[in-house]
Parts: sequence; C-alpha cells; structure tokens
Amino acid sequence: MSKAYWIWYPGDWELWLHEKISVEREMRGAIYPAYWRLDGHYSSVMYKYTYELDHSETIEITADGDFAIFIDGQDNYRTNQRTFRLPVGKHEITITVYNRAAVPALYVEGKTVYSNHQWQVSCYDQTWKAVGHWKSTLHQAAVTPANYRLPTQTYHPVSMEQRSDSLMIDFGKETFGYIELDQIQGSGEIMIYYGESLEEAEDHEHCVMIDQVQITEDTERYTLEKSRAFRYVQIVSNQVSIGDISMQYEYLPVAYRSKFHSSDALLNQIWETSLYTFHLNTREFFLDGIKRDRWVWSGDSYQSFLMNYYSFFDQDAVKRTLIALRGKDPIKSHLNTILDYSLYWFVSIYDYYMYSGDIEFVKGQYENMVSLMDFCLNRRNENGMMEGIESDWVFVDWADLDNRGEVSTIQILLCRSLEAMAMVAGLMKDGERQNLYVQEATLLKEKVLMTFWNEEKGGLVHHCVDGEQGEKVTKYPNMFALMFGYLTPAQAKSVKENILLNEEVQPITTPFMRFFELAALCEIGEQPLVLSEMLDYWGGMLDLGATSFWEVYDPKQSGREHLAMYGMPYGKSLCHAWGASPIYLIGKYFLGVRPLSAGYETFVIEPQLGGLAWFEGTIPIHQGEVEIQMNQDRIKVKSNYGKGILKYGFNEQNLEAEIPSDGTWVEVRLS
Amino acid sequence: MSKAYWIWYPGDWELWLHEKISVEREMRGAIYPAYWRLDGHYSSVMYKYTYELDHSETIEITADGDFAIFIDGQDNYRTNQRTFRLPVGKHEITITVYNRAAVPALYVEGKTVYSNHQWQVSCYDQTWKAVGHWKSTLHQAAVTPANYRLPTQTYHPVSMEQRSDSLMIDFGKETFGYIELDQIQGSGEIMIYYGESLEEAEDHEHCVMIDQVQITEDTERYTLEKSRAFRYVQIVSNQVSIGDISMQYEYLPVAYRSKFHSSDALLNQIWETSLYTFHLNTREFFLDGIKRDRWVWSGDSYQSFLMNYYSFFDQDAVKRTLIALRGKDPIKSHLNTILDYSLYWFVSIYDYYMYSGDIEFVKGQYENMVSLMDFCLNRRNENGMMEGIESDWVFVDWADLDNRGEVSTIQILLCRSLEAMAMVAGLMKDGERQNLYVQEATLLKEKVLMTFWNEEKGGLVHHCVDGEQGEKVTKYPNMFALMFGYLTPAQAKSVKENILLNEEVQPITTPFMRFFELAALCEIGEQPLVLSEMLDYWGGMLDLGATSFWEVYDPKQSGREHLAMYGMPYGKSLCHAWGASPIYLIGKYFLGVRPLSAGYETFVIEPQLGGLAWFEGTIPIHQGEVEIQMNQDRIKVKSNYGKGILKYGFNEQNLEAEIPSDGTWVEVRLS
Repeated sequence: MSKAYWIWYPGDWELWLHEKISVEREMRGAIYPAYWRLDGHYSSVMYKYTYELDHSETIEITADGDFAIFIDGQDNYRTNQRTFRLPVGKHEITITVYNRAAVPALYVEGKTVYSNHQWQVSCYDQTWKAVGHWKSTLHQAAVTPANYRLPTQTYHPVSMEQRSDSLMIDFGKETFGYIELDQIQGSGEIMIYYGESLEEAEDHEHCVMIDQVQITEDTERYTLEKSRAFRYVQIVSNQVSIGDISMQYEYLPVAYRSKFHSSDALLNQIWETSLYTFHLNTREFFLDGIKRDRWVWSGDSYQSFLMNYYSFFDQDAVKRTLIALRGKDPIKSHLNTILDYSLYWFVSIYDYYMYSGDIEFVKGQYENMVSLMDFCLNRRNENGMMEGIESDWVFVDWADLDNRGEVSTIQILLCRSLEAMAMVAGLMKDGERQNLYVQEATLLKEKVLMTFWNEEKGGLVHHCVDGEQGEKVTKYPNMFALMFGYLTPAQAKSVKENILLNEEVQPITTPFMRFFELAALCEIGEQPLVLSEMLDYWGGMLDLGATSFWEVYDPKQSGREHLAMYGMPYGKSLCHAWGASPIYLIGKYFLGVRPLSAGYETFVIEPQLGGLAWFEGTIPIHQGEVEIQMNQDRIKVKSNYGKGILKYGFNEQNLEAEIPSDGTWVEVRLS
Repeated sequence: MSKAYWIWYPGDWELWLHEKISVEREMRGAIYPAYWRLDGHYSSVMYKYTYELDHSETIEITADGDFAIFIDGQDNYRTNQRTFRLPVGKHEITITVYNRAAVPALYVEGKTVYSNHQWQVSCYDQTWKAVGHWKSTLHQAAVTPANYRLPTQTYHPVSMEQRSDSLMIDFGKETFGYIELDQIQGSGEIMIYYGESLEEAEDHEHCVMIDQVQITEDTERYTLEKSRAFRYVQIVSNQVSIGDISMQYEYLPVAYRSKFHSSDALLNQIWETSLYTFHLNTREFFLDGIKRDRWVWSGDSYQSFLMNYYSFFDQDAVKRTLIALRGKDPIKSHLNTILDYSLYWFVSIYDYYMYSGDIEFVKGQYENMVSLMDFCLNRRNENGMMEGIESDWVFVDWADLDNRGEVSTIQILLCRSLEAMAMVAGLMKDGERQNLYVQEATLLKEKVLMTFWNEEKGGLVHHCVDGEQGEKVTKYPNMFALMFGYLTPAQAKSVKENILLNEEVQPITTPFMRFFELAALCEIGEQPLVLSEMLDYWGGMLDLGATSFWEVYDPKQSGREHLAMYGMPYGKSLCHAWGASPIYLIGKYFLGVRPLSAGYETFVIEPQLGGLAWFEGTIPIHQGEVEIQMNQDRIKVKSNYGKGILKYGFNEQNLEAEIPSDGTWVEVRLS
C-alpha cells in the first residue's frame, strides 16, 4: 500500500471542481451557469521536493497532464520517462506538469520519496506554496483528481404506474442521481420528465428538468449521463418499451455523527428529515438546493457549515466550499456578487476554526482573507462603513427592505469579519495586521451602537441614509448583535422585549433569516417558543407530504402554490439546505453543545428541554463525541474528548459541573 | 456571405492560444513550458446585444461550448436551440456560453443581427466589455477560434541521402513545420532526429528535437503531429522503408510590404535573410526563436514589433503578442519575470500607437496598463527609483554586469513607460492620471540625469548603490537616453564621443543590445560605421552558410562552437528574431522612414546612403507605402498616404521638401 497521494496547486482542484459543478444546473436542457465569475486552475505548474538518500531508489511518476522531471535545476536535462532513478545524496527534484482541461496534479510513488504534503508547488509567479491534497480520498494513482466522482448506489422505485402513454415512477422520496433504464426493447426516442413533485413530473410543458434519449436497437440497458434531483419521473416513448427502472443514487459518503431522539415524535421526524435534506445538499460542496440553484452561495453555506458541525462534522466539505466561494484574485466584486456574502465568508472561517481547530487550513487562507478584506475596507464610505457601491448587491433578506446607505446588519457582519481577521492574523503572528483589525473592529462596534441604537425604539434601526437614522427597525441587526455578543445585558433585554418578541416589528418570513432569528431567540432562552415554531413550520411541511425540507414554506398557501416561485410553476426548490436548520437549533440550543476554544479543546454543554419531556442525543466534538440525556429530573452527559463544562440551572441557581473526557457519565439531578 | 465573425471575451482567445503555444517547446520529447505564469480564459461568460427590428428575423447560433439564449433578461425561459426567432421591437439578447478547455466563443448569423464588435461580454464580474475578435480571419462559423491553425504548404527537400542505416534529408534552409513520410513500407518504429545544423541531426544522443513514430502495416503516408524547427532531418528505422519525404511548412500569411535593393550585393542578401528569419519567427505571436525558446519574451518582442513596422506591418500579430505578454491580473511578478521586460511592454504600446494609430486597441489596454504601472510604481524605493526586489530579475543584457541598486537603464525605461502612460491617459481623457504620469516622468527624468550623469566620464554611469554612483560606465543607459531624446545636444555629443565610440567602454556582444546600439549609432549619424558592422557581423554568418540569422554570432568561434550555448552542444538558436535587426536599421536609418504622429498621419523621410553608392526601397506607412530611391546625386521619393516631409542635406544645409500623397515622385538633386 503506497503512502503517496495526489497533490496539486493549493485550491486549484477545488476551483476546477467548483467550475464544473457550477454549470450543471439546467433549465429544460439549456445550461444555467452560476451568476458569478468562475475561476479556473493554473494550467502550467512546477512541483519541487528535496530528498536525501543513502541508497538510490526508483520513483514512478503519474501526472494528470504532460510532465517533465529534472534534478537540481538542470532543466536542460529533463525527461518524461515515468520511471526515474534518484541518485543518492541530497538533491532537489523538479517536476513540471501542464494540463489545460483539468488540474495538472501529480502522484509520485517511491519507497521513501513520494508525493505528500511536504512538496511545494509554483504557478511560476516566483513564489512556492505548500501543495493542496485530499489525502483521505485521492490516494490512488489510477484515480486522478479530475476523474474523482461521488459514489453511487442502486435504488429502486417504490411504485411504477403504467399510464396510457407513459410510465410514472415514484422513488418514494426526494433523491438525486442518474436514472437507469433496463430491459429496453425497440429503438427510438425516450423523453424523461422529472419532478420534485408529482405535479411537476406530469407537466411536460413546464417541468424544469427533462432528458431526451436516443435508444438504438441493441441497447438493453441505459444509464442517464446527467444527475438530476427528483422524486418522480415520467417516461414517454412511442417506440421503446422499458421493463425496469432504477436509479444510481449519488452521494457524498459522510458519517452521521449526531443523534437525537425526544419525547416528541414529530420533532424526531423533523430531525431525521432535516438530516436527509442536509445530506442531499452536502456534496462536492454545500449546495443551496439540489434542483435549484445547485450552486454554492456564501450565505447558504454559512448556515450549512453550522449544521454540519452538528451532524456530519465533515471538515473536507467545509474546506472545499470555502475555497470555491473565495475564488482567485483579483477580486472585482463580492462573493456571489452580494456584499453580505463576502462577510459571511469571514465569519465562516472564524466558526470553522472554532469548531475544527484546523490551524493549517486557516493559515493557508490568510492571504485570501487579507486581500478580500482589503477589497472590503477600500469600499467603506467616509464614516468607515460599507455601503453598496457600483453594482454591489446588498441583500440582507428577501423582504421588503430599503438597503440604501449604511445598513446596520452589514456593519455588524463587517465587525465580526474584522474579529475573524484579527484572530487569524494572531495565528499567523502578524502582529501589525492583528492590531489594525482589532482597532478597526473596536472602533466599528462603538460606531454601530452610536449610529444605529435608538433608545426610544429599544434597539438598532435598519439603516442610516445621508447621516439620518431611518425610521424602520428590523430584527436582523438586533439578532446578529445579540448572537455576536455586542450588546450590554440591558440592551439585550431591551432587544428581546422591544424587537425580537414584538409583533409590531416586520416579521421574518424566509427560512434563511428564520435560521438566525430562531437561533437568536434560543440565545435569549426562548427555546419553548422555538420548539413550537419548529413543530408548526417544519411539521407543516411534513403534513403536506414533504420528504425533504423546502426553500420556503408559507402555511397560507395551498395546492400548487407550494410549488411555484420566481414566476415559474415549479420554481421552488423542495430540497433546500437551509430547510434543515433544526439540526443546528436542536444541536446547539437544545442539546446545548458548543466549543469554547478552537477545535473543542474546551467546550460547554448547556442542555435545555425547552418544553420537551425528555431527549437524548449525541453531538460530534471534533475527534470525539458527547452524549446527552435529559428529562425534567436529571441531566446525564458523557464525553470522550476535550475539557467540557456542563451548565445547568437548579432552584434558580446557575451551576456547573466538569465533564471528564474518559467516557464516564456525569449525572446531575434537577429536583 | 455572412458579415458575422467570432467574438469572445477580450484577450481571452489570445491568452488561450499563448498558453498552448508556450508549452510546445520540447527537449528530446519532454515538455519545456515557459518560465512564467500562464493565464487562461474565463470558462463561463455571457454576451449581450440590443437590437431593434421592424420585421422578425431568425438567427443561427454557433457557440464553442454549451450555450443558452434568452431575451430581455428572462433567464428562466432560456433555450439551447441553435435557431432562434427574434421578436420585433427593441430587445436585449443574452447568450451564456461555457467552455473549460477552449475559449467560449460565439458566432451569431442573421440578416441584420449578427455577432460583431458591437456585442458586449461579461465574465460575471459585474462589468461589460466590448468583445474581442479577429474579424479578418475568424469569420466562418465552421472554424472556431480554438480550431484555428496557421496554414501550411508542401515543401520538398533539396537532397535525400541514403546512408548505411539512415536517411539524411536536407531542406536547403532553416524551416518550420511537420515532416511528412510517404510511400511507407513495413511496420515498426521510426526515429526522427532534427537539426538546425547537419551536426545536430547527425548527433542522436544530443540533438534537441526527436520524434518516435510507430508505423502500422497499412500506413502508406504519415504526417508528424508536432511542428519542429529544422533544416536537416535524419530518419532511422530497421523495419520500415520510406520512399519519399516532404514537409508541411507552417507559416503566418503576411504581406512583404517593404523592399530594399542596393549597390551592395551582400547587404541585399542580409536584407533577404533577415526577412526570412523574421517571418519564421512571426507566427501566432512574435517568438524569440523557432527552435528555442519558442516563447514570447517582452524584450525580444519589443524589437520584433519595430522590425515588423518596416516589413509586414502586421498589426494583428503585434496586438496578439501584447495581450499574451501582459496576461491577466493579479500581477505577482514582472513580465517574463524580468523587471526591464515590464517596461519594454509600455514602450511597445507607445510605438504601436505611433506606427499604427490604432486608438481602439490602445484604449482597450488602458486598464491593463494602469494596473501594471501601479505594480511598478509600488515597487520603487524611497528615491522613487525601481530596483530589483524580491525575486525580480534585473536583466539589461547577457553581460558581465552588476545590476544591484538603482540601475540607470531601468530608470530611463521607466521614464519612457511613464510617457507612454501619459499619452494613453490623454487618449482616454483621464486628465487626472495624465497629469500624474507627466509629473512622474518629468521628475524622474531630472533625477536620472542628476543621479547618473558623470561629467568626468562624459555620460551616464551604470548604477548607484546605497546612494553612491558606481564607477562603471556602460553603453546601455547612454544609448537609450539618446534614442528617447533625453539628452541636451551637448550631452548627446559627449555621449557619442566618450561612450558610444569609446573602445575603452565595455563592448556590447549580444545581438539583443547590438540592436539598440546600432540604432543609437544611426541616431547620431554613424550610418557608415553601422553599415560596415552589418556587413561584418551578418555577412559573417552568411559566410558560414547561415540560411537564417542566429541568436548569437561570435566571429572568434569556429566549427561546432557556433552551435553550442547554455551548456548544450546544440543549445544555440540558429533562427532568432532579433537576428533580423537589419530590417529595422535599414528601414528606419538608411531609407530613413519614421512617423511623426500616430499612424503616419505625418511622417518624415530622411534617407542616408551611409556609404552605399545607391539604394532603392519601399516601406509601409500604415495604409500606404513610400518608395525611396537614392544615390549620390539625387533622392526620389513618392508616397500614397499621409503628410510627409523629405529631409536631406545639401551643401551643409538641412533642407526639407513636402511629399504629396498622390503618388507623384518628388526629386531633389544633391549636387
């Protein structure tokens, strides 16, 4: 078994893969590429590695592309022989690789000299970088990074209905993959109509995804080339008969590292459906939705990262997504063209470091962080605040909002981003920049409260235009300020009463912002309210037969209205990552687990029944797990990692207990 | 006949082509990619165009890549049908195209709506740009820009010698293309050894280029896949016999727009061989040499551009090369990694505008110019001068030079670059930057003379280190200062006597810098000296049987020494663009033609016999030509373009005559 693995220019395979994934969305056969600039890989790179050998050894070179190897800089004596005898002594190997279509990756196999993280690579810009790799998966010479595919598994439909002119197939739940036709007889055209709903698969004129297949006489079995998101499939052909249909379900192998079970059966079903929804969207990258957009959005990913920490804890998927979102320099517009989405990227790195402690990755992104932050800081106005300039999209939320001028939510996200910069600058021992970022963050935080706090309204207003505080108060800035700990206890109390629990304030209707709102409500101890919201909202979708959670759910709608969006009868995504937010809410605010220092070296468990009679669950804490059992009488926790504290209330006292990392149960009585 | 032509993201096809060309150099079968970062194309772009139609019309879409079309921003109603019916009225067409491997180019054919320079394109960075195109050549739907190839022509060898174990073929002169084997019998391996010299083709162990071909039983004819530079080819095979051999000569179609014939037969032969040498290197881009490096270097190109203005006047080749050299942002190191080579790029743009008057192209490069100049200006030291920092290569010349500190030649090139910036900023009506560049140029010019002028030595010293003038005087800064007109008449006179014609000063031995030196000598009226140098140096190569001019020629060497370089027995390029400099020297300084304002709107002819009894010649002046005939008694000139002035000396008077643009001869008597 070789110890070697594929190496490449850091980030380039991820960007190449993202580029490929970002053009897989289709509308009735026509491509629908992502709306932002897609950055590619460097086609011509060189790798280097210095070895010291007492005995000569032979290496075997596998390159995805044309390569040449030479020793000690003697580039006029290069060769492209795959087998190369290394001379004894201390020498520097250089291998140049070129590939336009795919990443010029390298795999070198030898007894002691082989491709690993110690190699360096350059795109000939006069700097050398540590190579990129995905050691755990891309370690076979025969499978190049470009040929990597997610695994598949055969699934059969739960029903196949022969209709007068078609076959209607139901796979029983939302799924993703490649339709497979078997026992084919005849030749000619087959049309396939996909639907996340039965209505969509039946509507040949308007269903979003279609495939047209030409079957030749000798074809017995046919697997579709393109992956699709669907539950139902309608197959129409005049000339061809199909005996059996199945699908190749395509998925990212992940471990389901969290568990949750409670006294409420509906909540348990919400948890399971959330996990399934989230897994479908956890792929090469965290997608927003598997049918639409099939894209990688920074705001959506920010939430997916958080859900991931309470489910699969798949660090590789987070890293790939962060790299893909950032793209390459030069930065000409914000991530996904949205101002807030650049800022979520910084906050996501902060969170990633807190949950994973992966200092190596975070350091590797520092250069990218600095240049994106420079871009942001250069776009501030004379008050040191960011406004939408040129064609910046200031999003905040899909809602009736006036986002002109200085939007408070943006400044709060910028503040948190500066804190993320300061943290990573610290890790990099870049004292000068660390000071700068700390200063900027402190200054901005003060300014935000000075500028947007309205004592009369008891919270932060939505924006200022031309130096004038706007009239409107929205929940957004208040909930972020609360979650990031920017408010005094008195301010927090005021925000709770006057803003978050005030029905006069414009309600939040998108699941995207509901995610943050419900989290903020938990932060102020409103778990019972959040529980009832979850049962209503997510339970409402289950009542309507949802097998995965939707992009939007409006209980006031009925019938086909639930399927329509963006002016299209089937425009709504019925499997949307942010629909899975109960994972995060339950994991962080009911089971109550969160890191106190990077990588869960220290952490806290602060479980809250929130109206449930009992629950039991497991949450991954980096390399370990915690188990929590709670009912009205007692809490039991155990852990096999880090240094944990159990926090709980008893007779109106706030108490704490240490949690040993040896897997023994800690039990505290609540009565 | 369609009026349509292929369009693409500006610069992207040129960069894609450059990337491809830059990895075509090989050493004995192994790739030898260019030493600098290769930038690629945007894979995902969108085109837009607004039309107004009284009658509906149908367009036919050909895209190199996957495409989708929609109208008026209704992107949910896209289609990938190649035939699209345009509704009447005023509408905006959007077409998205994706292609990873090649440039996502677009070709739209309709009666009144078709792809042309009026379309815009975006790489989704929220800006729209005028499309790129190569209207005169890439205008057929069937030939995508990616499939464009230079044309070829069959050439036969002048001799085929059957040796005991091989065939030795001589094509009679240096050439470039694809070997073609005909009347093949048998099957097995064929080895092909190439040589720019007979010695190289005979040396199986050390010749730079080889090909190994597997012939199968039914093959009668075989054309090699890769183009090579060679004069001789040796073919070795035990199993296969070859009845006939020819080659597909590959070339850029150019017009030989200049002519020169004189009383000196050797000079005439030098002129013809220069043109041939230059044509071989004038290809997709201006290459340094066709065997080695087959790369695009900014310093070499700068000279090629100048030679081109006095021969083919191929503006497209200049534009392609300028785009390829510049690459994309972010700039992390100098062009070709060489500080001076960034500066030659600016000066090349200055020259291109002066010779061609192509304001459209120059404006299109302004953004690229500004960011490269920002990069340069940010690398100045506290004195406002550029030094080599980090891994900058400060080249100046292949010679025994100490290029530490402030090198005077670099500052002079920077000065000229700032003048180029000021000129283009003026064309762009960017008054603010124009003022800045004018100021910086003026300041720097003063500083250069103050810092480097040494009254005692009578010229500019080579460099300053730590604020101290170095001892050494070199010709480089003095000849550039002279050519750019930075010296007072008194200084120019001193430089001529004390530096340029002073044998004590380190002589220039490379043809690269000889180009500038000989030009500078002409600037100070030393044509007779330059003529004798040309006859010696270039004549020397012809005496040795050269059929194209070399990278270096040292008359003190003999035999195989002439072939070796860079530690390799056949390392020297025997067909090097800069070897063709007589084109420029003769055109500009003997025939004496140069523009006075952009695009030859006004120009001067100042012919100099320089020791010749007579000459006659033609030089292209943008869209027109001038013809010049001169002997000791009279000058005759005629022109069909622009507003020309003939300058000539008579009885120690400097006289001028106007040249009409109607093609009538102007004759002045010199005696």
